[in-house]
Parts: sequence; structure tokens; C-alpha cells
Amino acid sequence: MTIELTVIGRVESPITDLDAAPRQADEGAPGAWLVFDERVRDGLADIRPGDALVVLTWLDRARRDVLRVHPRGDTTRTPEGVFTTRSPHRPNPIGLHQVDVVAVDGCRVQVNSLEALNGTPIVDLKPVLASEIARR
Amino acid sequence: MTIELTVIGRVESPITDLDAAPRQADEGAPGAWLVFDERVRDGLADIRPGDALVVLTWLDRARRDVLRVHPRGDTTRTPEGVFTTRSPHRPNPIGLHQVDVVAVDGCRVQVNSLEALNGTPIVDLKPVLASEIARR
Repeated sequence: MTIELTVIGRVESPITDLDAAPRQADEGAPGAWLVFDERVRDGLADIRPGDALVVLTWLDRARRDVLRVHPRGDTTRTPEGVFTTRSPHRPNPIGLHQVDVVAVDGCRVQVNSLEALNGTPIVDLKPVLASEIARR
Repeated sequence: MTIELTVIGRVESPITDLDAAPRQADEGAPGAWLVFDERVRDGLADIRPGDALVVLTWLDRARRDVLRVHPRGDTTRTPEGVFTTRSPHRPNPIGLHQVDVVAVDGCRVQVNSLEALNGTPIVDLKPVLASEIARR
């Protein structure tokens, strides 16, 4: 079975250098714009400043043949299975990013903090569920 | 740009009927097994009972040409853009499911609660970050 993803937009970010990118948003990622294709405009109609969303990206510079990684890239640590890490390197390098919406301008959505390189493809956008914030 | 996803496993669930499936896990979804392909075994090595994980699935029975939906399928409600809903119908129907691991048996991982149909393809698995649970 083949699954083909459609790119619905791109990240516009001041982060252009892989080595300078923070590993997680809470480690100092800058704000960014999510720039969506015109053809998905109707899907964006109800996004408002203040919304908490999950952005799904395709980490196109990641390796897909890696199953064990050093946690946080630290080679002094024992390699771990990728599925218990957030390493971008994994069979399907889908990035998950929780963001808060700052502004909406047509097909452009400004978010507070995003740890993705400029030009990274966006594949989906969802609201954060209350149960995901307060479940424990 | 074409992105091709690799199916890394399948959901084994008592839910076989789309109409009977709960809309979210906190609305009474049963436990399930995540059955991974042998070739990703190394990536699973550090999963332990009690781990909080996010399962990414491909909702293969969803429609991909839908940009507005009635929230929660309720036709008395005003249609909303799909990106502010968790509807499975969207350009890239990737399902996000927060689960707790109950047991691990080789390439089979038992989870407490999962709102996905039997046979649903799995495309990724990640740990839940502390910042995603406690951020507000």
C-alpha cells in the first residue's frame, strides 16, 4: 500500500541553518509564518488568534533509514530506539509542533514559536484537544 | 514534490465498524494492539509499559477532498474549516492519538485506548513531551 502526502503549505522562518535550529520549541524557537496554498483556503476559515494548534510538517532533510539514535544527538548517551525519541530521523519524518496562533492574514498564519527550518513542507493542522493538555 | 509514506504497522482493535467508532479516545475507545513490521523492531527497543506516546495513523477510510465539515458530524451545526476540527476528512488524513503503553511483546505494543478502526495503518510513534502536557 502506497500513501502519498500532499504538501498544503510551507513554513516561513528565520531558521535556515540545520545546526542552529533548536531541538524543541520550548528551547527558544522563534515565531514563524505558516504559508498555505490557496487551494486549502476554505479549511483555514475558522482559525483565530489565540488558538492552540498542532502543526504537522514533513522534515524533508531527515534520514529515513535510521532506527536508533543518540538521544538529543549526544554521542555520549546510549543509542535509543527512534520511537521513544523526537529525533527527526525515522521511517516517516513527520514533525509535530504545538503552537499558538498570533495572527491570521488570508492563507498566512503567524505562530508564536516553531522549531522548523524555513521552507519545511506543512502536511496538516489540527486543534489541540483539551484532553491532550489536561490529561494528567 | 511527492512525499511517500511507509506503513510501519497496523492497529489491531475490536472496532471494525466506522459508525460505532468513538470520535475521541476519551469518549470510550477500547484498548488496542499496535502491531509493527519486523523491519522497524530496532526502533521499538526502548518502549516500556507506562510510557505516554503519540501514535500517528493514516485514516485510510477518510475523504481527502473535504475542506469544510460539520463539527462532530452534527449537521445542525455550521460547517467549519477542517483545520480547526479533528475530522478524519482532510487533505492528509493523519490521525493523532495519545496513548499509554500497557504491555510490550516484541513488535506488538498494547495501549490503553485508541479510536482507530481495526487494520488502520500506523506511520509513526513518538513520546509525548512534558511541555505538551503541562504547557498551560
